[in-house]
Amino acid sequence: MSYYDASQGAHRSHSHSHSHHHHHTGSGYVTPVGADPQLWQYFSAVDTNRSGALSINELQHALHNGNWSRFDLDTVKMLVNMFDTNRTGTIGFNEFSRLWQYISEWQRVFKHFDRDHSGTIERRELSDALRNFGYDLSPSLLTLIEYKYASGATAAYGPPPGITFDRFVRACVTVKTLTEAFQSFDPHREGWARFSYEDFMKVTLMAP
Amino acid sequence: MSYYDASQGAHRSHSHSHSHHHHHTGSGYVTPVGADPQLWQYFSAVDTNRSGALSINELQHALHNGNWSRFDLDTVKMLVNMFDTNRTGTIGFNEFSRLWQYISEWQRVFKHFDRDHSGTIERRELSDALRNFGYDLSPSLLTLIEYKYASGATAAYGPPPGITFDRFVRACVTVKTLTEAFQSFDPHREGWARFSYEDFMKVTLMAP
Repeated sequence: MSYYDASQGAHRSHSHSHSHHHHHTGSGYVTPVGADPQLWQYFSAVDTNRSGALSINELQHALHNGNWSRFDLDTVKMLVNMFDTNRTGTIGFNEFSRLWQYISEWQRVFKHFDRDHSGTIERRELSDALRNFGYDLSPSLLTLIEYKYASGATAAYGPPPGITFDRFVRACVTVKTLTEAFQSFDPHREGWARFSYEDFMKVTLMAP
Repeated sequence: MSYYDASQGAHRSHSHSHSHHHHHTGSGYVTPVGADPQLWQYFSAVDTNRSGALSINELQHALHNGNWSRFDLDTVKMLVNMFDTNRTGTIGFNEFSRLWQYISEWQRVFKHFDRDHSGTIERRELSDALRNFGYDLSPSLLTLIEYKYASGATAAYGPPPGITFDRFVRACVTVKTLTEAFQSFDPHREGWARFSYEDFMKVTLMAP
């Protein structure tokens, strides 16, 4: 099984208890039974307006890359779209637990492919990661992805500065989404797909 | 002429003087002759490491929406790709002048279409703007764009919170880029285009 499949599977496991029993913490804030106390404490700290659920903005303040840069809004929105299973537009604690597990698995993937421990994914590492996920992309597509998801300046000479964690996840999910969309319009796997303008725009705008 | 064309044309005018004559300001920093003094002062303040050119990160700190939220990294990278004409990966003062003019024209476009002066572009305003630019999109494509570029939470009930300035510019440039890409694969304007996997990925990953 590839690393990617493992990560993708994360949010499909609904193993968290939906128990209505609670117990009180010292702070007077209620911890659900079965909840990871540390994760609950973190969730409560991020939930600054004490609404019981995290807004996109609260979540963006909570999620950091290894270098403490914030996640992009588009990555946060991608995650909320994945894990907001009851479609409230916010992330409750159970949804947050699964989102956190998904991110943790991606962090292991990221560390695995960040061979030189630079904290960012460079060209060769990106190529290895995508090939491991089943995407054997051409050098020119890899260059496009390398520049599009690079986290900073891309000087004329020398490579771009590498891809930070949150943009790496977004890049991989985008490649997966676009490839699957293409394949759904190429049912006989001929390597060619025909799109109406409507479908082309829909498919490309749906990628994160 | 549509508003969009006016904006797109901005960075093609190379009217700024490339004079080598300078004069000194009181601060000891050199102002190019013919430069807008206020813009030069702003540029110098943003160029925190005094390198004479703005990095993507310096530019991101300089560019704000009406509500003082920062531009997304992807919008800043899109702008640098447009205006970094000498491909240094940074924005010199002349490049910055043209970038600033482009943004100013978009600000006029944004204000024009933000009919209710809410500071964000909502569904109806988005639809009007895109139609004015020549894109008569279906309701379902408009919904996709409305949600994708919304600047915050999208609750289950009620519309998303609207699109802030920088994401509005990115949305419009993306629709333009994708439409032109589609048309280049539909030379006879039949409304259908056939793509190899390689071309499909290239075209979709090249959109900002």
